[in-house]
Amino acid sequence: MTVESHIVRVETQREGEILDITHQVQTIVENGTIKNGVVFLFVPGSTAALTTIEYEPGLLADFPSILERMVPRNGSYEHERRWHDGNGHSHVRASLIGPDISVPFEGKKLMLGTWQQIVFVEFDVRPRDRTVIVHSIGE
Amino acid sequence: MTVESHIVRVETQREGEILDITHQVQTIVENGTIKNGVVFLFVPGSTAALTTIEYEPGLLADFPSILERMVPRNGSYEHERRWHDGNGHSHVRASLIGPDISVPFEGKKLMLGTWQQIVFVEFDVRPRDRTVIVHSIGE
Amino acid sequence: MTVESHIVRVETQREGEILDITHQVQTIVENGTIKNGVVFLFVPGSTAALTTIEYEPGLLADFPSILERMVPRNGSYEHERRWHDGNGHSHVRASLIGPDISVPFEGKKLMLGTWQQIVFVEFDVRPRDRTVIVHSIGE
Repeated sequence: MTVESHIVRVETQREGEILDITHQVQTIVENGTIKNGVVFLFVPGSTAALTTIEYEPGLLADFPSILERMVPRNGSYEHERRWHDGNGHSHVRASLIGPDISVPFEGKKLMLGTWQQIVFVEFDVRPRDRTVIVHSIGE
Repeated sequence: MTVESHIVRVETQREGEILDITHQVQTIVENGTIKNGVVFLFVPGSTAALTTIEYEPGLLADFPSILERMVPRNGSYEHERRWHDGNGHSHVRASLIGPDISVPFEGKKLMLGTWQQIVFVEFDVRPRDRTVIVHSIGE
Repeated sequence: MTVESHIVRVETQREGEILDITHQVQTIVENGTIKNGVVFLFVPGSTAALTTIEYEPGLLADFPSILERMVPRNGSYEHERRWHDGNGHSHVRASLIGPDISVPFEGKKLMLGTWQQIVFVEFDVRPRDRTVIVHSIGE
């Protein structure tokens, strides 16, 4: 049993951007020494999140669109009244989706569905350089 | 320390179906060699999710009902305009709830609350044969 | 590789209360024998949840406020018609946010963002004594 620690870096351009990081995570797992285990991903930050989705253009529009419906950008936020940085809704959306995800792997291959990708979701209102922490645990 | 890998199979009949898989997961943990650790569950697929809930008939109606309110079936989805498979809302709901859950155990017993069950939630619009991947890590 | 098990206790006063448990989790990690790994938190209960948030008074109002918008307290719940305990919305909110979160650490330090705290969210309608289970896995 061992634990291995890596980082995936992503650059985002805009609010609502969804980036497919499956390939980077798969590469980390392939280059590691662990054959069977679980990979744990975490975003250090309070305005971005991780989940899985079928990575196709339709859903890349639909997912942010539903989040805008549930947590409107132009809603009334106490965060905005205190900090005036225009991203109250970004924080709420990030807490709702969550900063972590875990994916099992076997024979160094992520056990995702055929149409399922691991994605980074940018909720902040400006471009960001982001880091995703990737820990693999297994044997 | 060791890692053990198993599978739970479920058959779903309809959209919004919630299946209690606690017993299957508890049985896997009991039959394993690990006494104390964490069990990691993952759905390989982009139209289903895992969470916990008090498994009683009221909430089995309320949870899908709120999801219909938040992510309406008859909403406007780009996914639908491209693929015409009628499940744009299913994908969005699955990404929102998430495909993974982790539950600790001690003395081979899941540390759930008294009224808390591990559930598989089907969001797709047709019956599906589903697999849940179960990894236990501990000693 | 080893697994360590601890508990964090919190007392909540009211529905929608958000408690910062980062310091308690950091102390557990610091006092443990594991240098690098992942800490897994879980709430045994079906009316509370765990997530991360920037812990400042604005968002402590905004997050419950958006949840009230998405899952209204005075909505119509089958759970209420059966059990009359006034917390149908609490259960639905808890299943939506989820009972678990995992956070990586290195050199016994949680790898959180600068403005990111681990929080316990009380959704039940009465004060509760709560337990959060904390498992660390690593080496």
